[in-house]
Amino acid sequence: MALIVQKFGGTSVGTVERIKNVASRVMATRQAGHQVVVAVSAMAGETNRLVALVEALTPSYNKREYDVVVAAGEQVSVGLLCIALESMGCRAKSYLGWQIPFMTDDAFSKARIVDVVGEKMRHDLDAGYVVVVAGFQGVDANHNITTLGRGGSDTSAVALAAALKADRCDIYTDVDGVYTTDPRIVPKARRLDVISYDEMLEMASLGAKVLQIRSVELAKKYSVPVRVLSSLEENSQGTLLTEESNIMENVVVSGITCDKNEAKITVRGVPDRPGLAASIFGPLAQANINVDMIIQNISASGETDITFTVPHGDYQQAMQVLQQATQVIGARDLLGNPEIAKVSAVGVGMRSHSGVAQKMFQTLASEGINIQMISTSEIKISVVVDEKYTELAVRALHDAFELDKEMPGRISG
Amino acid sequence: MALIVQKFGGTSVGTVERIKNVASRVMATRQAGHQVVVAVSAMAGETNRLVALVEALTPSYNKREYDVVVAAGEQVSVGLLCIALESMGCRAKSYLGWQIPFMTDDAFSKARIVDVVGEKMRHDLDAGYVVVVAGFQGVDANHNITTLGRGGSDTSAVALAAALKADRCDIYTDVDGVYTTDPRIVPKARRLDVISYDEMLEMASLGAKVLQIRSVELAKKYSVPVRVLSSLEENSQGTLLTEESNIMENVVVSGITCDKNEAKITVRGVPDRPGLAASIFGPLAQANINVDMIIQNISASGETDITFTVPHGDYQQAMQVLQQATQVIGARDLLGNPEIAKVSAVGVGMRSHSGVAQKMFQTLASEGINIQMISTSEIKISVVVDEKYTELAVRALHDAFELDKEMPGRISG
Repeated sequence: MALIVQKFGGTSVGTVERIKNVASRVMATRQAGHQVVVAVSAMAGETNRLVALVEALTPSYNKREYDVVVAAGEQVSVGLLCIALESMGCRAKSYLGWQIPFMTDDAFSKARIVDVVGEKMRHDLDAGYVVVVAGFQGVDANHNITTLGRGGSDTSAVALAAALKADRCDIYTDVDGVYTTDPRIVPKARRLDVISYDEMLEMASLGAKVLQIRSVELAKKYSVPVRVLSSLEENSQGTLLTEESNIMENVVVSGITCDKNEAKITVRGVPDRPGLAASIFGPLAQANINVDMIIQNISASGETDITFTVPHGDYQQAMQVLQQATQVIGARDLLGNPEIAKVSAVGVGMRSHSGVAQKMFQTLASEGINIQMISTSEIKISVVVDEKYTELAVRALHDAFELDKEMPGRISG
Repeated sequence: MALIVQKFGGTSVGTVERIKNVASRVMATRQAGHQVVVAVSAMAGETNRLVALVEALTPSYNKREYDVVVAAGEQVSVGLLCIALESMGCRAKSYLGWQIPFMTDDAFSKARIVDVVGEKMRHDLDAGYVVVVAGFQGVDANHNITTLGRGGSDTSAVALAAALKADRCDIYTDVDGVYTTDPRIVPKARRLDVISYDEMLEMASLGAKVLQIRSVELAKKYSVPVRVLSSLEENSQGTLLTEESNIMENVVVSGITCDKNEAKITVRGVPDRPGLAASIFGPLAQANINVDMIIQNISASGETDITFTVPHGDYQQAMQVLQQATQVIGARDLLGNPEIAKVSAVGVGMRSHSGVAQKMFQTLASEGINIQMISTSEIKISVVVDEKYTELAVRALHDAFELDKEMPGRISG
């Protein structure tokens, strides 16, 4: 007998029929002899409907009350799922954030988890109940309702699995796992059986929008085995996220990701004096603009160029903010280009294998793709290229690293 | 400075615009220097939507989970109202049943109130907040969400007023008060400025569907002054429900009510032996059929007739149940008539004034209306007549007791 946490997103509980399907799936796991905790999102479209009601009242809403409103979505779906389970003869009990309690800080609308008390749930599990928990919501020390931010149900599920020391956390979604790259770009992209937390973190932040990043961080911190699998297919094997040490032999590159949602900005001819970088990035931070890749070369002739990327949506504002800053610091020029893409190769095997960067650059060069920026971490190499080359670059790299071929030495999820 | 509880129903908070209107009204009371607690229903249509989702899953749903689902409706409206108030610069804080706590028993979907803890609300009121409470919902001793049954928000509001010892409980609704009779039947029906709790209880149970009966019982028990007034009109005076002792001089008859929602059943030739009445009403109780008026005359020749009324919707089933019972007890005959109406005159003044019944019977006789059954309480006389005479009877009685004329000696609400 294992203890399994299952998470179902809004699409999976979007209609009465789908709720019944989820109930059947949960019941099958229960009948296989396992204890089951289910974390559920609001029915598809419901959170958007509630947010629209709030925003129709005022653009600058009170955040405590915003959380009260939007938390109602998950309340409805947990109740409905329990009713479906009970009607099939499966004992079930719903838990809202405050009933667990799922303790968070009081940062309304983007609360951080403080503690998840497993005692009551464990009692009900031992009494034979399926425990159905409202995702996305918690409660602060003063008994106020809080929410974790959009997409927070993945994080709820992993936190529950960590608190209950569950044997596994299964995240049911509309894709059947994590792929070597976007299958819409590379049809022969392959589903990975296993991936390490670190690789997944790089994949997630680079645009493979399968899991909320916070949930992967949490899974890594508490070593929760997480499986991402399809709620639509009956026998989906999915992808198992696990610790690197559980993977028999690391492949060099696990996946290729791309992100078109960035723009590139260069401040040219910055006088090479201490504190000037702060004069550039300070105003951006004040304007709440996240800066991603930053590159500064060693200076020649007493001045330097600083290049970085910002989210596409913040590009216009960033250029305005910097127009002023460049004058203040006496930089020569401000250049911007929103038509770029970031293409990355991710893999824990990079640590022990040299030549990955070389192979990447050579592959792009042979396709005539110019590299505009390079940034690396221990397990990732990212390059910025002209946006029009995105798909070409991804396909070429996927081929070069032979990602369509099954690798030996991986354990299967 | 007074402490006023205001209750707004689903229609009053049915759209974003209407929620803003409610917020303006609350703010006006606050700016007049009063402390305000607001009890709110779910947005119009929302509870029906949630109930439909539940019933689409199964007709015999788990009641604990039903309460979890339907309580979400009020959660949304309290949050939205607080957001509207805060956006107008009025500090506001929402409370759900469990946050108060609004303690009930664990009879899910029709819970009874056990205790309402006023401490936290009082603290927020003293700190300058408008307190906005989700109507209809509570929490049991085991931290389960409960609901009070449909229309329970009136009861929530009165319970809050009682717990906080509020100076008044204003129930905003879509009518501007309690009338001497149904204005659709008698156009010159007059709004009452004041009415006693007892009269209102008789009025409510007899079909003047202005307030939930439980809320009136509660108001009477804790002597809460309740005002029923229109949420649509700016200067609605409404009707004040108060103790009889607060009304300077009681008029004999306050109102005429009618109820077409009953059917009449007669069991003829019942042998006059102890225990036989139980043999008739036992099976009805088992079938969950509420019996209203019961009349049994003194017996002649060792047998008697028993006549009573049941709700219209239960008529067919009641007849089936009784077909068997009459055979078992050896009664002669079973007669039924669903086409009847109950017409009543209500007034606390009846206690000290004789001749009311006489005047009532004479008035009906002069219109050629035959009286089929009579039942009286201390402050009410009800007669059952052929359904087709309903409106005629109501108009004739309204005229006979001169209810269109303003009575002297009433204090004004």
